[in-house]
Amino acid sequence: MSPADDLKLAHGLADAAGEAIRPLFRGDWSSERKADKSPVTEADKAAEAAIRSILEAERPDDGIHGEEYGLSNESAGRRWVLDPIDGTISFMAGRPIFGTLIALLQDGWPVLGIIDQPIARERWAARIGEATTFNGAPVRTRACKSLDDAVLATSSPHYFTPDTAEAYMQLAAAVGGNERQGTIVYGGDCYNYGLLASGHIDVVCEAGLAVYDYAALVPVVEGAGGTVSDWQGNPLDADSDGTMLALGDPARLEDVLEKMAPHAHDH
Amino acid sequence: MSPADDLKLAHGLADAAGEAIRPLFRGDWSSERKADKSPVTEADKAAEAAIRSILEAERPDDGIHGEEYGLSNESAGRRWVLDPIDGTISFMAGRPIFGTLIALLQDGWPVLGIIDQPIARERWAARIGEATTFNGAPVRTRACKSLDDAVLATSSPHYFTPDTAEAYMQLAAAVGGNERQGTIVYGGDCYNYGLLASGHIDVVCEAGLAVYDYAALVPVVEGAGGTVSDWQGNPLDADSDGTMLALGDPARLEDVLEKMAPHAHDH
Repeated sequence: MSPADDLKLAHGLADAAGEAIRPLFRGDWSSERKADKSPVTEADKAAEAAIRSILEAERPDDGIHGEEYGLSNESAGRRWVLDPIDGTISFMAGRPIFGTLIALLQDGWPVLGIIDQPIARERWAARIGEATTFNGAPVRTRACKSLDDAVLATSSPHYFTPDTAEAYMQLAAAVGGNERQGTIVYGGDCYNYGLLASGHIDVVCEAGLAVYDYAALVPVVEGAGGTVSDWQGNPLDADSDGTMLALGDPARLEDVLEKMAPHAHDH
Repeated sequence: MSPADDLKLAHGLADAAGEAIRPLFRGDWSSERKADKSPVTEADKAAEAAIRSILEAERPDDGIHGEEYGLSNESAGRRWVLDPIDGTISFMAGRPIFGTLIALLQDGWPVLGIIDQPIARERWAARIGEATTFNGAPVRTRACKSLDDAVLATSSPHYFTPDTAEAYMQLAAAVGGNERQGTIVYGGDCYNYGLLASGHIDVVCEAGLAVYDYAALVPVVEGAGGTVSDWQGNPLDADSDGTMLALGDPARLEDVLEKMAPHAHDH
């Protein structure tokens, strides 16, 4: 299988997930609570099942790690990592800013990533070594001269622990030049990383992420000229602590790490 | 002018605002900081200017109160209250979940409201005494048996003061049955109230709102069967303290007020 074949297949997986999700959006879906009490809906399960059935037919030797249905072919060097709906609560609330995440890991490193928003039909796709595309056209992150000019995004304050919240708040206070409210957007999950790749958001800062939350984001951000790391500036690998920074302008990484440093090592 | 004429005009105002905003979305707009350091873009100003020029021609005797260009015809009994882009930071970040807000106040009370999302072309419209519509079709809020089943929305934790944040956190801890993260969506501004009217969100809880932030929301929520109040359960009038609750199921208002009560009077 060539990398181009894998990317073509990944587009087909995202198409299949979207076809499973669209009829349920703002409709009558059932839901339940997982062991950690986080919600999962019929749409999350239908989308992951649709992706898995294609992968099992087309790439029977590859591993699959999905948020809803777990890990199969654990020893395979190639592993597809799936979050059928990243932003399940946004889906539940009828907001078109959730996404389907599809990544391919080769020996643990993401070499392909897709962020797909099936309602607005917006898709970011990336293959390592090539430019990230948005609906087929190459995109670039934007320059950011100073954190004072930055737009920062994070999904929810509830993803932080008391310690990570302190580090986050140091960063939040440094962007947008407004102590009461900086230029910060909340909510959005994976969608924020797509907008960063397209040059509309400068920094995304999150914690508490699992591999299926971030694997697809890495190629998308890096292929658009941005950088990703954990809160200590280290690459996101299998031992990641779940913290994540994405910057459109890699030149601002040191500034961000410096703002967060008094607290970034506490958690 | 009949109420039907006013509603028809209001749709035209929303159309004009959308025409001003759409070409600038994810484009090259200029921005500046207001006196309170909150950002305002070329799109906010162009949309309000487009609305005002129509109102000045079609309703020369009416008052206008817009977020960007202030108050005119102050003594008029009829006053149009405008927020050309509610959710300016979402607009800046390229997220299609901001909205244009248009309200008509008669002797201080909102009798007509529109929430318009010009990118997704989604519009909630309401006239007092009639059912709220979403893109022309009537909508209803949904029943909510218990706060444990509720989806809660709020735009940003930064809109709270330390005191209002405490009251909010009491409510947040009561929804969704998950201490780490309840079923809570962040971001969204006025868009959340539209989704509440359509039966996808159960509670919106905010503070720090000005009249142009909430005037249009009141008829939209009430016309769909929901209820709005401040954090003490009082109607939102000209002396409002900027706190706001919206509930799709009015039967849950007492539960919400009870959760927030130990802190709701502190601010």
